[in-house]
Amino acid sequence: MIRLKKPFNGYISCDKELKDANTVLFGVPYDGTTSYRPGARFGPKSIRNESFGIESYSIYQDKDLEDANVFDYGDLDIPVSQASKVIKEVKDFTSKLLLSGKTPIMIGGEHLISLGAVKALAEKHPNLTLIHFDAHADLREDYLGEKLSHACVIRRCIELSSQILVYQFCIRSADKQEVNYAKENIQVNMQKYNFENLGNILNKIADSPIYLTIDLDCLDPSVLPGTGTPEPGGVSFKELREAVTMVASQGKVVGADIVELNPMCDHSGVSTIVAAKLLRELLLALNK
Amino acid sequence: MIRLKKPFNGYISCDKELKDANTVLFGVPYDGTTSYRPGARFGPKSIRNESFGIESYSIYQDKDLEDANVFDYGDLDIPVSQASKVIKEVKDFTSKLLLSGKTPIMIGGEHLISLGAVKALAEKHPNLTLIHFDAHADLREDYLGEKLSHACVIRRCIELSSQILVYQFCIRSADKQEVNYAKENIQVNMQKYNFENLGNILNKIADSPIYLTIDLDCLDPSVLPGTGTPEPGGVSFKELREAVTMVASQGKVVGADIVELNPMCDHSGVSTIVAAKLLRELLLALNK
Amino acid sequence: MIRLKKPFNGYISCDKELKDANTVLFGVPYDGTTSYRPGARFGPKSIRNESFGIESYSIYQDKDLEDANVFDYGDLDIPVSQASKVIKEVKDFTSKLLLSGKTPIMIGGEHLISLGAVKALAEKHPNLTLIHFDAHADLREDYLGEKLSHACVIRRCIELSSQILVYQFCIRSADKQEVNYAKENIQVNMQKYNFENLGNILNKIADSPIYLTIDLDCLDPSVLPGTGTPEPGGVSFKELREAVTMVASQGKVVGADIVELNPMCDHSGVSTIVAAKLLRELLLALNK
Amino acid sequence: MIRLKKPFNGYISCDKELKDANTVLFGVPYDGTTSYRPGARFGPKSIRNESFGIESYSIYQDKDLEDANVFDYGDLDIPVSQASKVIKEVKDFTSKLLLSGKTPIMIGGEHLISLGAVKALAEKHPNLTLIHFDAHADLREDYLGEKLSHACVIRRCIELSSQILVYQFCIRSADKQEVNYAKENIQVNMQKYNFENLGNILNKIADSPIYLTIDLDCLDPSVLPGTGTPEPGGVSFKELREAVTMVASQGKVVGADIVELNPMCDHSGVSTIVAAKLLRELLLALNK
Amino acid sequence: MIRLKKPFNGYISCDKELKDANTVLFGVPYDGTTSYRPGARFGPKSIRNESFGIESYSIYQDKDLEDANVFDYGDLDIPVSQASKVIKEVKDFTSKLLLSGKTPIMIGGEHLISLGAVKALAEKHPNLTLIHFDAHADLREDYLGEKLSHACVIRRCIELSSQILVYQFCIRSADKQEVNYAKENIQVNMQKYNFENLGNILNKIADSPIYLTIDLDCLDPSVLPGTGTPEPGGVSFKELREAVTMVASQGKVVGADIVELNPMCDHSGVSTIVAAKLLRELLLALNK
Amino acid sequence: MIRLKKPFNGYISCDKELKDANTVLFGVPYDGTTSYRPGARFGPKSIRNESFGIESYSIYQDKDLEDANVFDYGDLDIPVSQASKVIKEVKDFTSKLLLSGKTPIMIGGEHLISLGAVKALAEKHPNLTLIHFDAHADLREDYLGEKLSHACVIRRCIELSSQILVYQFCIRSADKQEVNYAKENIQVNMQKYNFENLGNILNKIADSPIYLTIDLDCLDPSVLPGTGTPEPGGVSFKELREAVTMVASQGKVVGADIVELNPMCDHSGVSTIVAAKLLRELLLALNK
Repeated sequence: MIRLKKPFNGYISCDKELKDANTVLFGVPYDGTTSYRPGARFGPKSIRNESFGIESYSIYQDKDLEDANVFDYGDLDIPVSQASKVIKEVKDFTSKLLLSGKTPIMIGGEHLISLGAVKALAEKHPNLTLIHFDAHADLREDYLGEKLSHACVIRRCIELSSQILVYQFCIRSADKQEVNYAKENIQVNMQKYNFENLGNILNKIADSPIYLTIDLDCLDPSVLPGTGTPEPGGVSFKELREAVTMVASQGKVVGADIVELNPMCDHSGVSTIVAAKLLRELLLALNK
Repeated sequence: MIRLKKPFNGYISCDKELKDANTVLFGVPYDGTTSYRPGARFGPKSIRNESFGIESYSIYQDKDLEDANVFDYGDLDIPVSQASKVIKEVKDFTSKLLLSGKTPIMIGGEHLISLGAVKALAEKHPNLTLIHFDAHADLREDYLGEKLSHACVIRRCIELSSQILVYQFCIRSADKQEVNYAKENIQVNMQKYNFENLGNILNKIADSPIYLTIDLDCLDPSVLPGTGTPEPGGVSFKELREAVTMVASQGKVVGADIVELNPMCDHSGVSTIVAAKLLRELLLALNK
Repeated sequence: MIRLKKPFNGYISCDKELKDANTVLFGVPYDGTTSYRPGARFGPKSIRNESFGIESYSIYQDKDLEDANVFDYGDLDIPVSQASKVIKEVKDFTSKLLLSGKTPIMIGGEHLISLGAVKALAEKHPNLTLIHFDAHADLREDYLGEKLSHACVIRRCIELSSQILVYQFCIRSADKQEVNYAKENIQVNMQKYNFENLGNILNKIADSPIYLTIDLDCLDPSVLPGTGTPEPGGVSFKELREAVTMVASQGKVVGADIVELNPMCDHSGVSTIVAAKLLRELLLALNK
Repeated sequence: MIRLKKPFNGYISCDKELKDANTVLFGVPYDGTTSYRPGARFGPKSIRNESFGIESYSIYQDKDLEDANVFDYGDLDIPVSQASKVIKEVKDFTSKLLLSGKTPIMIGGEHLISLGAVKALAEKHPNLTLIHFDAHADLREDYLGEKLSHACVIRRCIELSSQILVYQFCIRSADKQEVNYAKENIQVNMQKYNFENLGNILNKIADSPIYLTIDLDCLDPSVLPGTGTPEPGGVSFKELREAVTMVASQGKVVGADIVELNPMCDHSGVSTIVAAKLLRELLLALNK
Repeated sequence: MIRLKKPFNGYISCDKELKDANTVLFGVPYDGTTSYRPGARFGPKSIRNESFGIESYSIYQDKDLEDANVFDYGDLDIPVSQASKVIKEVKDFTSKLLLSGKTPIMIGGEHLISLGAVKALAEKHPNLTLIHFDAHADLREDYLGEKLSHACVIRRCIELSSQILVYQFCIRSADKQEVNYAKENIQVNMQKYNFENLGNILNKIADSPIYLTIDLDCLDPSVLPGTGTPEPGGVSFKELREAVTMVASQGKVVGADIVELNPMCDHSGVSTIVAAKLLRELLLALNK
Repeated sequence: MIRLKKPFNGYISCDKELKDANTVLFGVPYDGTTSYRPGARFGPKSIRNESFGIESYSIYQDKDLEDANVFDYGDLDIPVSQASKVIKEVKDFTSKLLLSGKTPIMIGGEHLISLGAVKALAEKHPNLTLIHFDAHADLREDYLGEKLSHACVIRRCIELSSQILVYQFCIRSADKQEVNYAKENIQVNMQKYNFENLGNILNKIADSPIYLTIDLDCLDPSVLPGTGTPEPGGVSFKELREAVTMVASQGKVVGADIVELNPMCDHSGVSTIVAAKLLRELLLALNK
């Protein structure tokens, strides 16, 4: 007889039963507001496909994804080009996960999708704190007239509630208005270039529910060329890995995302591997 | 003294004065509804940049673009992600050109932009005939729920007026509904795979105003790999060049476009050269 | 509630139940004897991943894969580097399929895997006829001392039984010994360069069970650069598509394979689309 | 004991002794006047490196390079950037070969190098006939002020002697001045687009010594994207192979070259294979 | 009416009037003496094209190019292959800029072009100091017999006048003769590998007019793979950005260049972005 | 007369006579057990081809390969797909070199080939110490059932003799079993992530014969994307260069290899240059 195979095609080792899972991974293949180089829509599929190129075990944390209860749902079905509908889909799905007691981990896709997840989480946790790793401030009022743009996503998050606080790290690109907005708005705390003070901040916000949003372009383009808007002068893989592990281990993370991998700009395939390995470290650090 | 250079950066030899020009070339860097591989937004810029790699003179037609009155306007300023606004921009600009007595020639960008140009032309010429070169029928009612999609653009054009006729050539990909729609709708005439009967049809519609819309994926992917949705089994460059020249020389062409070049999928650069050369042949054939 | 998605990741529309299927598709991600450019191991995965870029409906045949009973099993689990074990795995799996009354359709991987399928089929059909589309004769006695090599696969098939006949098409590369072997061995019929006489031959062997093995490098490298040993001077997509349809429609095909797609050499992605579309045409033509 | 290997790194099977060879192959890694995309300097090395990917035996001609007396000299040592010195080096080396009774076969590099070889040959054969396969006429008086440019090479050859005749084939790009020059100059015979009349012309010039110069961009860019100035609308590999074989078999060829392969634009590697295979067919056809 | 667009295609925000500009940017698309991988000719065009991918505002310096009086002249018209003519064109143009009181900022192209600019500046400032960032010493007497070569450019500059001093940084490739020449020649001061002592040196030469020449291959190839002669072991983007800013802010810079970007080796596009961002930082730091 | 050129095509300056050489370089173009991305078979050829892009002189060590007695043998003739035969070929060749008093330096190819060299060396030096630079522990008992796999190579080396000691550096990927094996087996000393303690260890093992095996993926993928199994978080070129120099200068190195360069994943060509430069530093440091 032919033995049927379990047709699993998700991220390595995230093949646990949904009902048992405490963490649910899902992808949002959207890049509709990308302003420079599109292709982030292929991010989730690439991360899953190439995840078999790394181990499920982390030598850094001495933990194995085989031992973690993570379920990979696959990608949400979303429209190609309407930002507001995409945000709504993400929000609704995230809300369902929260209702079921699951921690949502989202992979993009472009950065605008974070707004959907933050909407759902801010309803549950009005005092949500955003930890934001990015090369770009994403604090524009609008981008070429559009308010729902990857370049405005953090500002849109802040506008959800005056209780939301944002701690930005690695920022090295913005326009003057964004810098001024960050200075004048007490909700925003901008750390330029690197992760300085991350430890202190985590101590300070010890009891706050945290949403960690990682735009992969916080990495230097030498480490991750495969992103839509590469910005020279970023952090190393080691710095990002340690920062992610620190937040996920020490903080009270209630949701997270990894966005802006663009496989169309990743000819060597190395950027996808970087994203896949970072996701493993995030999932393991959350699995306390 | 430093001699100032004329800062021309348009398509080769299309540097005539706007007021003298009988033909106006413009680009629409939009790919917001692309369903498979995005990047057609970079089409107009690439075609202009690489046009210096070909001659302004055509040995096929024994004509030179230097002797043609074509003005390259550059690209329209359009929003990144809202299809309806893009179509409106294209329509308004095309209408202005028509009011000034100019023939509009548009370079894409994805195929949906043709709807904007056809709207403007159909207002002026209610009995407009569309000559449509494409691998795909583009006759869907909607695509994943979206009616303004590249996959539906010809159907949207047909719906503008019951007087509009469409002659499709080179079609080799569709779903069953599109094929049935084409059979049942008297406005649509589908020629599969190649340009058979093009000569007869041009004779038949001799007095009709023609809009020629060229989706470059009618070419075989060996000739033009650089497109969003390559479809094996297409025509050769020679076949397309001859068909374009025939339509533009014999027909009463009131507008035209060349769409769906995707430079992000054109690693060898050859697809861009194909598009640039085809545009030259089109412009020269229109310049009677 | 979160609605669970069917985690299908196979070739488009080949998601029927195994028990209902009359045709079973499976992949063999092996390229261990590749002598020039390795990477065919990624062929099956790429074909499946990119199959969503084409339609399930064929305008050529007016048939839809949605209406065909094909089950995509996924890839066999095979060792990385031992040819004889891989051939045994393929043979055993094929035999199981035949026992269940399923038609086996295999995607490679390199050409040596055909030997496994032919072994199984020749046991059931001692008078098997091989229809072989390829740029290379694959008739070597050995290749650098190895007898289990992609360069010897057809010779190994012939040696299975003196009843087996081979009809080769599109051959344009061989060494002198192979050419002489073909001339002197009555089991081999070599048609150089193209598909001439294919119709006559199909008539002649009307009642014989046929195994159709398609090495994609029979195509010209302009059409399919993504293969391990590209050989200039091949056939067009149209020629191959028509030949495949003819064999599958008119002949009594009891098994088939499509091998030697190498995604590592397919930077434009077009070769994978060619393979995916050809597979659709094969499956539809077999579905009488 | 360690057995020393013959450190041969030339084109396949061209490892005969210089003194026995009737044909000498040599490379000229020069691209100093390339106007669009440089990189042809890497042509000779790539052709040699990849020649192990094809057979030494030709199924078309039923001949084997193992049986031909060809010696691969390697590359000439030339300056990087001074055209006149390069031409002199090529001329001097070619003259030495002629003195030794060897037939020179040169691989480029850019097209200007042909001038060096033609100079040497025209000294020996004042009634030399050039058979010229190319997309471009190369008949300019000068290119941006330079007279020693790839775009002027055939004109410079014609100017060497009023006895020299040129038969051009496949031409599809020129400026108006070149076309007029060709019409008015009795030394030039231009066949546009393809190889029509090649047979008749070979008959007509049966006794003339022929220099065959093959600019690989006569091929369609789908077949050979890897060239500095790709020009859509060219011939197929089959057409070129047959034309080369016809000239070399029927004509009295006293020298030949294959130029303008640009490996930097050949990401799939297929262009290099095309050049390597064409060279084999040329060498075999010359080996009567 | 159709509103005419200002046909600006220069580097972001460098669209001020020439007469008002204190700084003039110009490109020299020359790579005629490149010895390894050519293509630097496309550097200026690529930097301009991709400059829209970065901000005009620098978060490092809190300055905006919108507020700087920089005019982008475009590229000089230069011959393709004659080094001495190119150097003369660059020298003449630079002299004109100096006469008009403009600071010249040149983008290459290969490193030899610096000789033209230094000639003009050394006429005006006989005590010119060269600050030279590079992986290679460029101190050869000649390169394969050519004295006008990128590999000799600094030696040629030194020979212009015995008053000229050179401070080299990041050097990690040279031959023994160059190292000895540097040791024995009091005009040359070589700092290997990095920017150590840059601050001290700037203090020491506080009143000297400085020409800053930046060969981008001083960067590590991981940061900038897109260069003709990559040399592992270079500095990071951060180190180079800080060094450039330090020289431009503290020194009396009378001219500068950024050379050796090679877009043909920049498949990910990241190298071009690095060059574009560095140019912004240089222009802003000069704008005191 | 035509002056015959010495047909040297080896690694720069390694053209000394075999009999005079104290060091022999050889390549093993094997990648038969590669589990993820194949192509390392092209490593030796690429390193040689591109070695002309670097100097033979090292500014770091102030030594020149011209002054070293190294002979480049070229590549071993090996079967494509049978691991055990390849290992035997490597072992036999290495033994011959040792008999002749030559130091063997091998370039791969995949890591499994090290087993062949270590077998030969361990016969001569039973107390051999392995210095192992790698991202992966390579300590598996078997990999998907195969014991002769790149993923098990160090374990296989250890099993040769209980006297063999292994010092691993830069390890950042393993499964739990490998980590445990390393902890429990006194032959293995694993240094994670970097080269910490390398100096101390060299002092400790001062008199032991050392085999240095360098898997290039110990480097960060930003530095070397061109490898089969890239693993983010590796060391810099500077760190690796210094470590290699330290081992080769201070240790009693009796053999060494550099493996796992994969040119098929090295689109920018930079990885090959990294490997070529590292090889130069190794050869020079060994040349005391």
